[in-house]
Amino acid sequence: MKAKVAVLGATGYGGVELVRLLQNHPAVELSYLSSESYAGQRACEVYPHLKGLDMPLRALDAAEVARECEFALLGLPAGKSMEIVPRLLEAGMRVVDVSPDFRLREAEDYQQWYQLAHTCPELLAEAVPGIPEWYRDDIAAARLVAAPGCYSTAAVLALAPLLAERLIQPDDIVVDGKSGVSGAGRTSLSLPFHYPEANEDIAAYAVGGHRHLPEMIQGLAELAECEPSVTFTPHLAPMTRGILLTIYAKPSAGVEAAALREALLRYYAEERFVEVMPVGQWPHTKWTMGTNLCFLSAAMDKHAGRAIILSALDNLGKGMAGQMVQCLNLMLGVDESTCLIGPAVYP
Amino acid sequence: MKAKVAVLGATGYGGVELVRLLQNHPAVELSYLSSESYAGQRACEVYPHLKGLDMPLRALDAAEVARECEFALLGLPAGKSMEIVPRLLEAGMRVVDVSPDFRLREAEDYQQWYQLAHTCPELLAEAVPGIPEWYRDDIAAARLVAAPGCYSTAAVLALAPLLAERLIQPDDIVVDGKSGVSGAGRTSLSLPFHYPEANEDIAAYAVGGHRHLPEMIQGLAELAECEPSVTFTPHLAPMTRGILLTIYAKPSAGVEAAALREALLRYYAEERFVEVMPVGQWPHTKWTMGTNLCFLSAAMDKHAGRAIILSALDNLGKGMAGQMVQCLNLMLGVDESTCLIGPAVYP
Amino acid sequence: MKAKVAVLGATGYGGVELVRLLQNHPAVELSYLSSESYAGQRACEVYPHLKGLDMPLRALDAAEVARECEFALLGLPAGKSMEIVPRLLEAGMRVVDVSPDFRLREAEDYQQWYQLAHTCPELLAEAVPGIPEWYRDDIAAARLVAAPGCYSTAAVLALAPLLAERLIQPDDIVVDGKSGVSGAGRTSLSLPFHYPEANEDIAAYAVGGHRHLPEMIQGLAELAECEPSVTFTPHLAPMTRGILLTIYAKPSAGVEAAALREALLRYYAEERFVEVMPVGQWPHTKWTMGTNLCFLSAAMDKHAGRAIILSALDNLGKGMAGQMVQCLNLMLGVDESTCLIGPAVYP
Amino acid sequence: MKAKVAVLGATGYGGVELVRLLQNHPAVELSYLSSESYAGQRACEVYPHLKGLDMPLRALDAAEVARECEFALLGLPAGKSMEIVPRLLEAGMRVVDVSPDFRLREAEDYQQWYQLAHTCPELLAEAVPGIPEWYRDDIAAARLVAAPGCYSTAAVLALAPLLAERLIQPDDIVVDGKSGVSGAGRTSLSLPFHYPEANEDIAAYAVGGHRHLPEMIQGLAELAECEPSVTFTPHLAPMTRGILLTIYAKPSAGVEAAALREALLRYYAEERFVEVMPVGQWPHTKWTMGTNLCFLSAAMDKHAGRAIILSALDNLGKGMAGQMVQCLNLMLGVDESTCLIGPAVYP
Repeated sequence: MKAKVAVLGATGYGGVELVRLLQNHPAVELSYLSSESYAGQRACEVYPHLKGLDMPLRALDAAEVARECEFALLGLPAGKSMEIVPRLLEAGMRVVDVSPDFRLREAEDYQQWYQLAHTCPELLAEAVPGIPEWYRDDIAAARLVAAPGCYSTAAVLALAPLLAERLIQPDDIVVDGKSGVSGAGRTSLSLPFHYPEANEDIAAYAVGGHRHLPEMIQGLAELAECEPSVTFTPHLAPMTRGILLTIYAKPSAGVEAAALREALLRYYAEERFVEVMPVGQWPHTKWTMGTNLCFLSAAMDKHAGRAIILSALDNLGKGMAGQMVQCLNLMLGVDESTCLIGPAVYP
Repeated sequence: MKAKVAVLGATGYGGVELVRLLQNHPAVELSYLSSESYAGQRACEVYPHLKGLDMPLRALDAAEVARECEFALLGLPAGKSMEIVPRLLEAGMRVVDVSPDFRLREAEDYQQWYQLAHTCPELLAEAVPGIPEWYRDDIAAARLVAAPGCYSTAAVLALAPLLAERLIQPDDIVVDGKSGVSGAGRTSLSLPFHYPEANEDIAAYAVGGHRHLPEMIQGLAELAECEPSVTFTPHLAPMTRGILLTIYAKPSAGVEAAALREALLRYYAEERFVEVMPVGQWPHTKWTMGTNLCFLSAAMDKHAGRAIILSALDNLGKGMAGQMVQCLNLMLGVDESTCLIGPAVYP
Repeated sequence: MKAKVAVLGATGYGGVELVRLLQNHPAVELSYLSSESYAGQRACEVYPHLKGLDMPLRALDAAEVARECEFALLGLPAGKSMEIVPRLLEAGMRVVDVSPDFRLREAEDYQQWYQLAHTCPELLAEAVPGIPEWYRDDIAAARLVAAPGCYSTAAVLALAPLLAERLIQPDDIVVDGKSGVSGAGRTSLSLPFHYPEANEDIAAYAVGGHRHLPEMIQGLAELAECEPSVTFTPHLAPMTRGILLTIYAKPSAGVEAAALREALLRYYAEERFVEVMPVGQWPHTKWTMGTNLCFLSAAMDKHAGRAIILSALDNLGKGMAGQMVQCLNLMLGVDESTCLIGPAVYP
Repeated sequence: MKAKVAVLGATGYGGVELVRLLQNHPAVELSYLSSESYAGQRACEVYPHLKGLDMPLRALDAAEVARECEFALLGLPAGKSMEIVPRLLEAGMRVVDVSPDFRLREAEDYQQWYQLAHTCPELLAEAVPGIPEWYRDDIAAARLVAAPGCYSTAAVLALAPLLAERLIQPDDIVVDGKSGVSGAGRTSLSLPFHYPEANEDIAAYAVGGHRHLPEMIQGLAELAECEPSVTFTPHLAPMTRGILLTIYAKPSAGVEAAALREALLRYYAEERFVEVMPVGQWPHTKWTMGTNLCFLSAAMDKHAGRAIILSALDNLGKGMAGQMVQCLNLMLGVDESTCLIGPAVYP
């Protein structure tokens, strides 16, 4: 029997990617799609490319969701998730939420970075970070999974092994991120994402203080038992999908490039969705287009004594909807890669 | 038991898309990959995004192919296919070929448009055009399927119903085509496809005589029993994938827009891969990205008395590899949509 | 002494291009910049690339404009220009307006296409179409110049000579237009121009009835004394600037490609901003980037008996701000090419 | 009287930009254009956008150049310049060379990074680095100017003031560079710059050892009298023009963001081509398109104790041809900004 699954926020870019991935899932029945902007219309009216999917888009009604579904995948804005999630959990549902609402362990951190008082801080300790490569068993058993942001996922996958094995120093890390424009979402049109502005341009934003920084640091601290100090600068690149992180760190004494790569392999050689590149190859975001894959490389600038780690993924794939489905698969007890196999659409 | 399938020309863009589609095909065992440029390497060395596919790329050896496989999908250059195909057929294989070598019924036409003498003209009559929507039963039984070009597929799907039902006049048709750059292939690097030249530019090419014109006309003549006169102008648009045709034709007396749409629906309402748009919606190439879908719209410019038909598909999907797999599925006797379902990767 | 010039609507894409072109004009003093959205700020705050231009942006006050300036260049929305222009003219100013408000000769046509009652129809007869190649002397003497739309300019330059010399038939013309996204302007953000939607996509819009059609037909009728019947389909292409028209028409009896090219040369050989291509070359929009140039080619599809004319320009250059400056130069009595020389920024 | 100027390597992207900038230069007569690939053709045949420029492209003949010209601007490949330059100098010419051949002070460094023995090391000490903001008087008097690479220009302009004033520590600098594809040039077509490969992709290259690193370090060492240690990682971004550097450095004790900005202003407030942004604004490469401008910002990540400096320019403008013309203007004794004024073509 198929599990009944709700996608809340189904017309955002993450939501429509969830629908794409789940539409033919053998263990899932897509049962409820919510959309504030398009409530009352049918999915294929809003997204004609969803040929044949004539499910209705509904205004979100938590009671209705809980009555009709067992699992909910949430792609709602900050503040909205913490309104809904407690009611879904109380009704016995299991939830994967990709908003920032349940990512930070401390309610004060949330308040500081999102300027919102947290309304259900008691759930923060329970929420399991949604990175299966590091929290697999907890996710399988979780009521509430907090899927991390796209930048955090890319950073944690790259850095956690190296920090955990003390191969790099935690107190001198630079993360230079480049993201495609779909990361900005679909609903809130604004000038920087207007085609003539974003096309043929690259620029940094949120210099010195992006909201994904605290979850990145928290994740690394937790997994590697250290206190990382990270400077993170995100950039908007003129492409639709893809995130590339170029990470700079000081190696511990005596560490060579080979040791970095070996450490990554120790953690990920058996992972289906993390690929450690051969020596001398650097990941391209294009390789991840439409997939749940993350590509990692490690190099050493011997002259300057600095490790360079590269991490590429699709911000809507492993950075969002793909990873949410990976989590859902664990919670369902089916093969973790269900509906997630297959290489990038290339070129 | 799985059928053993060879992909010849596996490292071109069409070839790598075939590999993507077939990699998880339940009735297919990918058994042989050929590549002139990369013979001796492994697939995932050339295309790192094919994580884990460590099959060898081999220099094409027809005898070897015939010994090891039952089916061959060919994405070879003009002239090369007609060298190989006879040997594969003699050895009992069944073939889907996407080169122009077997598309034209007359060897003289081939010689005229491709400046090559045809070396096996006796096969031209046998080759079945690879458009399942129109030649389904013949394809299922065929030894040799000649998959049409991407422009032809888009044009035939749009125009054949309207010509067959005499709703438009065959002697006054304009096909204005816009194509993404991947249609130019991967191997032959040339200046027009160099990023700084192709980016932020649109231009026509082959004005007044593109090689896809004769197969377009032949296909329409055959299917609609008429003698179409077509002006076809292709354009290179600054995007990777996608073809959009804007087709102009004179309607027959008394024909309104609704009649055009109804005719398209009569032919395609039950088709899995052709979608006739609601009135007033025009197809976007983005809706087809990575899929085997073709979207069609019909409108009427009442003032000027002219029908406008729009046809969009992915040049590497329904325009090439997707349709080849659709043909293979028919030949295998499995569900025609095997490995071809699912909407576009969007956005 | 320099003429005092106002740019009204200075922060739209056309406005900022006017500012770029006029900033170093030897006969112009930029004296007044208006902007609804940014009134009160300085130009280089809104557009940091205008390094050093710290002129204030003002809320538009017609009396103030008339007091301070002699010439006004207007890039205002439909409906707004006809409010302002009469007051500027009454005060003795001379005006180049690029809105649709003064392009159509008949107030009813305006009402039909723009759903607005015209409030100063008495000015419609006086307004001179702003295409210097065809209305040079009238522009030089005009009080009010109505600069045509970008599509119209490209179509009129390509077709007027051929129609005037009766080389093509006026009753069977198809204009297939492709435009970059900057044509949609800057102020009204909407989903089709959101980067992830417009990128990697091509689609038609306003199929069967774009607002630029009536001015195109009116212009051709007036210049060539004929009654053209035109089907016009615009498309949005994934690039910032550039318009390419692919025009199809039936040649008159006995007309060959050479005759088309010669006719274009007869009209334009001495023109600084229109370039007729050598035989067999087709224009690229990239060649026009940032310029006031229009490139034209003519070909013949002999088999189908159809002329194909290609016309490329920069929608913000010859399609808008460049041509407005060309008109202003005529009105000022300075060299028509002042501030307009120099080739495209390439690549 | 105008100076006679040769552009050698006139059909590369830098060369054609030089031609664009010099075509209307009041003190320059473009007298000689060389091109290996297109010798014998006319400039406007190769580049139709150079409407009307029917100068011949010649195979490079140093004697001829010296006979006909006083100044030479060279955009030739590594190794080729050092063949030609000594002969031009001997004949009394003055030269601006943008190849790497005269950038490094030590012949051994050149050999190490370019795998070529230097054939005229005696000129290395004489060559003046072509950054007018730092070497203005030397350039004005120079026989031989070695224009730096695009990455180096952007890095030196950003870092030299901060290092010279000891506001940041020289031994812990990371330069993360993002470049448009035109930086790869036009002549050598290769797969990474093929449109379908470069489009919708971002990736690092030359990780841990790009050839521009030694000139960057040499320039900073010379100007700031320090021994900088720099890790430099360049990336290819999917756009035609533009370079953005995101630079990370440790501030000296007690240094705040304001001090960084003030230092930049002290050096550049009077410079025509360097713009220090207001606090909280980060440069966009789009602002530099077609110009000789460099935009700089400085910020501080207080929490991690790290300075972040951003530097944006057009790789073919201030990063190449624009700066070469700026140098030429100094050598000619004309206003340094001749033919270089005007803002970016935007958007």
